[in-house]
Amino acid sequence: MIKAPKKNTFGMIGLGTMGSNLLQNIADHGYACAGYDISAEKVSALNTINPESIQGFTDMSAFTNSLSTPKIVMLLVPAGKIVDSVIEELLPFLDQGDIIIDGGNSHFLDTDRRYLDLESKGYHFIGMGVSGGEEGARRGPSMMPGGDKKAYEAVEPILTKIAAQVNGDPTVAFMGNRSAGHFVKMVHNGIEYALMQLIAETYEVLKNGLHLHDDAIHSVFKTWNEGRLQSYLLEITSDILAYKETGSDHLLLDDIKDEAKSKGTGKWTSQAAMDLNLPIPLIDIAVSMRDLSKYKDLRIKASTMYPDAENIHSQNSNKQIAKLEQAFYFSMVSAYAQGMHLLYRANEEYDYKLNLDVIAKIWRGGCIIRSEFLEDIYAAYTTDSELKHLFLNRTIHLHLENSIAGIRNIVSDCALKGIAVPAFSAALGYFDNFRNDEMPANLIQAQRDYFGSHTYELKGKEGSFHTEWEAGN
Amino acid sequence: MIKAPKKNTFGMIGLGTMGSNLLQNIADHGYACAGYDISAEKVSALNTINPESIQGFTDMSAFTNSLSTPKIVMLLVPAGKIVDSVIEELLPFLDQGDIIIDGGNSHFLDTDRRYLDLESKGYHFIGMGVSGGEEGARRGPSMMPGGDKKAYEAVEPILTKIAAQVNGDPTVAFMGNRSAGHFVKMVHNGIEYALMQLIAETYEVLKNGLHLHDDAIHSVFKTWNEGRLQSYLLEITSDILAYKETGSDHLLLDDIKDEAKSKGTGKWTSQAAMDLNLPIPLIDIAVSMRDLSKYKDLRIKASTMYPDAENIHSQNSNKQIAKLEQAFYFSMVSAYAQGMHLLYRANEEYDYKLNLDVIAKIWRGGCIIRSEFLEDIYAAYTTDSELKHLFLNRTIHLHLENSIAGIRNIVSDCALKGIAVPAFSAALGYFDNFRNDEMPANLIQAQRDYFGSHTYELKGKEGSFHTEWEAGN
Repeated sequence: MIKAPKKNTFGMIGLGTMGSNLLQNIADHGYACAGYDISAEKVSALNTINPESIQGFTDMSAFTNSLSTPKIVMLLVPAGKIVDSVIEELLPFLDQGDIIIDGGNSHFLDTDRRYLDLESKGYHFIGMGVSGGEEGARRGPSMMPGGDKKAYEAVEPILTKIAAQVNGDPTVAFMGNRSAGHFVKMVHNGIEYALMQLIAETYEVLKNGLHLHDDAIHSVFKTWNEGRLQSYLLEITSDILAYKETGSDHLLLDDIKDEAKSKGTGKWTSQAAMDLNLPIPLIDIAVSMRDLSKYKDLRIKASTMYPDAENIHSQNSNKQIAKLEQAFYFSMVSAYAQGMHLLYRANEEYDYKLNLDVIAKIWRGGCIIRSEFLEDIYAAYTTDSELKHLFLNRTIHLHLENSIAGIRNIVSDCALKGIAVPAFSAALGYFDNFRNDEMPANLIQAQRDYFGSHTYELKGKEGSFHTEWEAGN
Repeated sequence: MIKAPKKNTFGMIGLGTMGSNLLQNIADHGYACAGYDISAEKVSALNTINPESIQGFTDMSAFTNSLSTPKIVMLLVPAGKIVDSVIEELLPFLDQGDIIIDGGNSHFLDTDRRYLDLESKGYHFIGMGVSGGEEGARRGPSMMPGGDKKAYEAVEPILTKIAAQVNGDPTVAFMGNRSAGHFVKMVHNGIEYALMQLIAETYEVLKNGLHLHDDAIHSVFKTWNEGRLQSYLLEITSDILAYKETGSDHLLLDDIKDEAKSKGTGKWTSQAAMDLNLPIPLIDIAVSMRDLSKYKDLRIKASTMYPDAENIHSQNSNKQIAKLEQAFYFSMVSAYAQGMHLLYRANEEYDYKLNLDVIAKIWRGGCIIRSEFLEDIYAAYTTDSELKHLFLNRTIHLHLENSIAGIRNIVSDCALKGIAVPAFSAALGYFDNFRNDEMPANLIQAQRDYFGSHTYELKGKEGSFHTEWEAGN
């Protein structure tokens, strides 16, 4: 009797670094894997890595034939039309009941569309956010799958093994209906944008406000990363603030152009939040400051016309650094809080069936925004699964109150001296309006009624009202 | 011989206040007008106004038959699907060469689509933004038509007559290709959002920072409106700050709910700017603060948990008001500058053939954002039609420099005392980064390369580079 060739359990389309690393991670856990790419070069590279457990293909038919039933195929290809065309190419080789996982950064509206289309054709579709970068993919990412729950249960044993582990729990869980996974991943990236902007502004204050040397700046980030601010992003910032090329007398950082690029997920977060009328000003400002950085020619010209920033005069830079730590903590809380608020609102609107505690739980490891503070967020939603906003949690409330003085001082000093801290300022402005039970928005309503007869509402009275304002004057 | 019945020159579909007022305005200038609405009530109301010159119809055939050739039909109906369905209903009654004007607040992408569709069918289409509210429509609006230039020339004599006039020039001009008119109007509304938010924050500082009485606050706005800050929005704010219902001992404003509504054009501006990677943080924050105002339940709860704002202690409130005037001026310039920058960028991307000087010129009258400062903007683009950003104009540069101290002080004081001024702060943060030839965006690039191998660029060196950052530490 001829033995049937061994079938592969997991197939991956797209063998870039992320796809290849994730496949190696899966193979490490004992699964036979197949990889497909149109690039023969990438396929031969894959075939040299772990030929016992991973087979590479440039032929779609051979690739899909190598998979056991139900076939599990993950896509890690660039978001957009390529995902659609790869799915179209793949479908003739699949049977009803097979499982397609889109592991890329697809826009959640595309995922909704694909989910409905594939469901109607009898295929299972999972839209899954994957965070952790290349290293995470290889050693343990954080994964946010959503869509077809039955299909998720079929791949759950694999995903829980390859995920990062925090206190014995894997950093993967089913997020919710349809595009829930990609929506959660998008908000993750939005928070990431805000945190990166806050770190950049911190660096700006340390460097151009307090004029600390690189060693001292490195030491600030390193120290912070050992306390309540511990996070992956501060950890890598600390590394970057110490990195010199061999033989160089200065940081590589100093040679890098100050023009930030982006792949658009931060922008998507801001745009989606605006469509939900949900304010996330910290993420908005992070997006717009990346955009402003690209106008280098205008900035150079303006820098010759307008006066420079001044030092934040300080007898005691340790005292200033302590205030800055409070400012950073305060703003970091705000970044997460705005992101979680967006998830709360999206859950209402899109009926995702999200569990915010589970989201906080799986973000504690593997992903780019993992941090000590996520333990507090996890605790907050474990205590109250219906919590509407993190600022209303008792523990976080106390932490915030202890940090308010710091952010007030930093924003005030930087405003006077010309150090740009738009994200710190946005965190403070958001907070000062959030805790304001009487915003000046009544004036905006009156103006709208004045010029456009848009009407206004009255306190303690039902209905909409209009006034001929001019007549009274 | 029986005389043929007199034909109408101009037809209007949608007889809400805007449509009815605009039609009366046109009739006042000697044109025979026809109005159509599905509401018999609105049509009979119209028929009582000026039966000599305006005929109302509920029958589309009779309405269109009453028009001379080429038929000119303007739509003033709610933006969105209604515009499409009205056009579909209208087309069978039109002939090739007839002219359709969409005078509503349509999204520019919808206008692009309709323009191409109608052009292919042989009809002329004009997407036209109309600003000025109900009063403007009746007495002289500012109009921003774009699309079919030949068709514009046919309606130009009418539009120039009904527009507001500034120094003898009408506040209407052809904006440019396809959706140029609606794009310009969208940005107009975005600037309007920013200016209204700045006025609301000014009111907040005067009321809760300096604890001025209503009379004093009214007087501040009234005085400002007589100087370099003269503008329609300050004028109506001044009126609102004096308006009491008959027999009431307090301002009507105090009874209005502090929850701002919106029709979405501010949001569209922010979303469109993000798609163009063009920073307009003042408009973004105005949109998100309107959104935050709607979370009244959370704000009430938070107000019981977190400390209130403190007074801005001041021996001399006149000195504080002078600083506030500078802060307002500085931020107002920034709001216009960000909007004009967006138009500059959109013009590159969408090949609209905009003339920024013409836009400033027609905004000087009739529209909601008309102001004394638009004369400076008009002068700036007249001097240099290729000016990339208003901050780089010499005159505006001097004005800004003279106002910087004020905004630095106000943002600083408010940060310390807990008065929310997120738009003032955003104006300052934008400026301090705009005049910074070395933003900390290099750190963001290093982080992106660290966790995602997204590569970075080096100063003075072509190409993209990647570093194994961890290895060096």
